[in-house]
Amino acid sequence: MASTNELKSRTRGDYPYLLEYRTRWADNDMYDHMNNSIYNFLFDSVINTYLIEHCGLDPPTSAQHPLMAHTHSDYFSAISFPKVAELCLRVNKLGKSSVTYEVGLFEKNIDGVKAVGKFVHVFVDRATLRPNIKGMNDALRKGLEKLVVPGISSKL
Amino acid sequence: MASTNELKSRTRGDYPYLLEYRTRWADNDMYDHMNNSIYNFLFDSVINTYLIEHCGLDPPTSAQHPLMAHTHSDYFSAISFPKVAELCLRVNKLGKSSVTYEVGLFEKNIDGVKAVGKFVHVFVDRATLRPNIKGMNDALRKGLEKLVVPGISSKL
Amino acid sequence: MASTNELKSRTRGDYPYLLEYRTRWADNDMYDHMNNSIYNFLFDSVINTYLIEHCGLDPPTSAQHPLMAHTHSDYFSAISFPKVAELCLRVNKLGKSSVTYEVGLFEKNIDGVKAVGKFVHVFVDRATLRPNIKGMNDALRKGLEKLVVPGISSKL
Amino acid sequence: MASTNELKSRTRGDYPYLLEYRTRWADNDMYDHMNNSIYNFLFDSVINTYLIEHCGLDPPTSAQHPLMAHTHSDYFSAISFPKVAELCLRVNKLGKSSVTYEVGLFEKNIDGVKAVGKFVHVFVDRATLRPNIKGMNDALRKGLEKLVVPGISSKL
Repeated sequence: MASTNELKSRTRGDYPYLLEYRTRWADNDMYDHMNNSIYNFLFDSVINTYLIEHCGLDPPTSAQHPLMAHTHSDYFSAISFPKVAELCLRVNKLGKSSVTYEVGLFEKNIDGVKAVGKFVHVFVDRATLRPNIKGMNDALRKGLEKLVVPGISSKL
Repeated sequence: MASTNELKSRTRGDYPYLLEYRTRWADNDMYDHMNNSIYNFLFDSVINTYLIEHCGLDPPTSAQHPLMAHTHSDYFSAISFPKVAELCLRVNKLGKSSVTYEVGLFEKNIDGVKAVGKFVHVFVDRATLRPNIKGMNDALRKGLEKLVVPGISSKL
Repeated sequence: MASTNELKSRTRGDYPYLLEYRTRWADNDMYDHMNNSIYNFLFDSVINTYLIEHCGLDPPTSAQHPLMAHTHSDYFSAISFPKVAELCLRVNKLGKSSVTYEVGLFEKNIDGVKAVGKFVHVFVDRATLRPNIKGMNDALRKGLEKLVVPGISSKL
Repeated sequence: MASTNELKSRTRGDYPYLLEYRTRWADNDMYDHMNNSIYNFLFDSVINTYLIEHCGLDPPTSAQHPLMAHTHSDYFSAISFPKVAELCLRVNKLGKSSVTYEVGLFEKNIDGVKAVGKFVHVFVDRATLRPNIKGMNDALRKGLEKLVVPGISSKL
């Protein structure tokens, strides 16, 4: 597991996939910065966009779909509406039916990482809500393999 | 008031200000398209981004800030995650202390307007939550005047 | 259409169905009160709870389901987390395939209505996303008829 | 740190504070159950309600307020709109300026715990956004002490 100091030093270059998300008015809470729960909405969004556009997932119909088993986030500094967030994604561990993503949130045109999250998806059959005995399908596996960063998955 | 048919024929060219918003996973509801309430989040966001970046509004500290008095939206067709939305803004009526915005939601690279909303902000003094006797301040008025579309405000 | 003064004088007794909703931390925005868009989440929630529990709607599977065609809300005063909201529902107009709801939002233990919304649902066939030639099904109609308030639908 | 099996066996009796939250239509995602990010909204809400109602916190004005440093959630089974959630809270560790909460989510009238979250708040001075050299104030400490469960904080 990466130490907090390791996570704080993440850069955009540590992640093979990046999407921009404009923040929304209601993302800010009474402390005038983006509420911590909103980070999870964005982490979930960059992950699912990748699954839909690069792994063949169609959430309403696919025979296999992911369920969230675990989330874990460290918050280092704040971002506020109306800034633009950059969500960066990689895969730290690819199992038979599960995948561990790491997601970094940056602010556009600002260097340091604002927060790092770890998310564990388990792919299940739609009919049973249980993992398939053969594990995740090939389209999912091939898509997710492209986000595995060599030399990194072992230590996290 | 514009008829539904007039609203349905809105184009991006009818609005002087446009921002892109990437949709989020949780924007879609059980019918697999963006929930109607999310439109309001986006309408609110494009309006407030304009107020902050072009009218001098600083929501946590400004002596005057807006309160929403009325919202009104017509939905013509759906947009779904992970598509990118374009939010288009203009001012239909600029009063002493109030402003009536019109907001159109489009899908990037798609022609027709998906929804049109009308929002009424009343600017109030932070201390009293009442309109100032002099109306909205100059920075607000000058910024908002730039979004008034000539020949349109009268008929809406 | 009801005048603003009529709407402001609404009481809980004007609505046959009421549910309590506890507000959430992130409902409040930078002005320390519930964001206007959140009202729509709550209006949508009390309507759909009624449809599911009293009209036989099962959103993932029902042959007919509602689409939102229009929303319209007037905001009279604020509510803030962590207060408890009371959402009150009635039907102002019941058409062949469409229904016009009126929803009032109150704060628990406080008299005056905080906001009143009008929502128009069109029931469509899941296969076509178009209204059925026979209109909405019997379970929907019978459930919704119970919320029609005699002597009120005509004037709104 | 509690094992997953320990967490799965949590009951309402393990938590001294419980609030009911009615789920909302838009809480459900395309898989027809409550989206994982919504859990965080609810965890945040039960924590902040306790801080406001029992620890003297007034988010817009208090000299000290919490920042979220870390969140961590395990999801065991799903809950869906329109069910009612029960959010249960206790304190696992009370430091000088920080507190580690544990939150369990149950479904009303159903036995097993649906998800367990761990949240770390750091209390900071409003002026500096840094912890005070004297740590959190007395009202916060006395309120939070009431949620410490004897014999539990040591092992988590």
